[in-house]
Amino acid sequence: MTTQAMAARSVFFVSDHSGVTAETLGHSLLSQFERRPEHSVTLPFVASPEKAEEARRLIDAAALRDGARPIVFSTLVREVERAIVKQANGLFLDFFDAFLLPLEQELGQTGSHMLGRSHGMGDAASYMTRIEATNFALANDDGGQTRDYNRADVILVGLSRSGKTPTCLYLALQYGVYAANYPLTEEDLGGDDLPGAIRAHRAKLFGLTIAVERLREIRQVRKPDSRYASRDQIRFEVESVEGMYRQYGIPSLDTTHSSVEEIASRLLQITGVQRRIMP
Amino acid sequence: MTTQAMAARSVFFVSDHSGVTAETLGHSLLSQFERRPEHSVTLPFVASPEKAEEARRLIDAAALRDGARPIVFSTLVREVERAIVKQANGLFLDFFDAFLLPLEQELGQTGSHMLGRSHGMGDAASYMTRIEATNFALANDDGGQTRDYNRADVILVGLSRSGKTPTCLYLALQYGVYAANYPLTEEDLGGDDLPGAIRAHRAKLFGLTIAVERLREIRQVRKPDSRYASRDQIRFEVESVEGMYRQYGIPSLDTTHSSVEEIASRLLQITGVQRRIMP
Repeated sequence: MTTQAMAARSVFFVSDHSGVTAETLGHSLLSQFERRPEHSVTLPFVASPEKAEEARRLIDAAALRDGARPIVFSTLVREVERAIVKQANGLFLDFFDAFLLPLEQELGQTGSHMLGRSHGMGDAASYMTRIEATNFALANDDGGQTRDYNRADVILVGLSRSGKTPTCLYLALQYGVYAANYPLTEEDLGGDDLPGAIRAHRAKLFGLTIAVERLREIRQVRKPDSRYASRDQIRFEVESVEGMYRQYGIPSLDTTHSSVEEIASRLLQITGVQRRIMP
Repeated sequence: MTTQAMAARSVFFVSDHSGVTAETLGHSLLSQFERRPEHSVTLPFVASPEKAEEARRLIDAAALRDGARPIVFSTLVREVERAIVKQANGLFLDFFDAFLLPLEQELGQTGSHMLGRSHGMGDAASYMTRIEATNFALANDDGGQTRDYNRADVILVGLSRSGKTPTCLYLALQYGVYAANYPLTEEDLGGDDLPGAIRAHRAKLFGLTIAVERLREIRQVRKPDSRYASRDQIRFEVESVEGMYRQYGIPSLDTTHSSVEEIASRLLQITGVQRRIMP
């Protein structure tokens, strides 16, 4: 079979769990190539030989249809399913296949090769921590409540639509961190001091900022051609909050080109806030 | 060097991004072994030769301290950093190292080997979708508002603390799905019909349920020794909601042994709700 451009290929993400890890892996590899595949299929919960046979048939069918074998990103912990999917007419890239053996050799132990709560948010203690942290983020979202700020690990401040809410939720779900957020509105800007609600918590503040054009784009979707979405208004707001961060020594981050995941991770790095859930 | 049990080893997660992918990978591999390492260190944003040298030094120091070389899970897309970290005294398991070459050969193309927005929530369109879906989940959390149910992709129903809120948020952040949730309280149970707020949306309902003992454990943390946390009360509630799901043909899932990630993924599979963000 000749090599063939990416666009003609099908891509499969095969997993014995939700498939999110296989997707993440596959996605980072595929982003190294210019053209993106047209078809991608996630096959989650492939946790029996029957399911594996089904996956194999789907991959074979795609190979036939496309005239090129699919790329298969897989995270299958048990050899029985892996062996079946491997027989399909595809390029099989399995994470356990590649790394379990070297790890076993290094440790002088055999891995369990058992399905387990290996992906995600499995065990009870960290589940509870996530739930509590998520509830905290929800209760303390958007300045809705400020009396619990003493329990916060960090308080995000920033303009409307600069990414505060999703960052707080991500911090809660991924790291179990208690993150509140307080929106900086026009009334908070240009005063002589920090807004009253956050004044006593300066050490916990973390500022988000964002490029004027990007924020305009985002607000334009929300309220087209409003003052809220006007370039002059946004420039004033962005300059004011950046001035505030400088004046009060609030550590900050520009979110223009960062994903929520990156913002959260950099925030931990910059502030030294400890995660409550270990990887 | 002799092989040595896991507990004595340090584990490093090294990444040119947030490190979340490296952690996920490493974590699923490590869960195959009984003992967990005592030290684990995440080194995010290793995106320059200097940072890579620093990582190398940290790994070498841990090897010396532990008397056994660390396990290094890494996702470094550029060869320059990879080559440096690889020289450290550790077992180096890098995702790009293992899979980029076979993929290049298969496609007859060279990957860019460039840092990119390869992990997470990078591009603008899917960022906006996530934000909108997150805002939808927040606005429609816990039955707080029900007039937007016509815009929902799915409406989760279930008892207090059965996992509705984190599942909705995960659906929003990971898949861009518009998920509302409505709590089933005692007043909603045992009536002649579905509660008024959700009656018109039966086709969108998805029920969560949970084992009596597990729910008791969770509620006990929240309100110790209350009626809310009593076994009899919880048994009544769980039996009633399960009866409701059966009677009205509401598809449902037991969350007792599932992670939020698994619940979300199974929900999509069962309901056929389409994600708004492609992997």
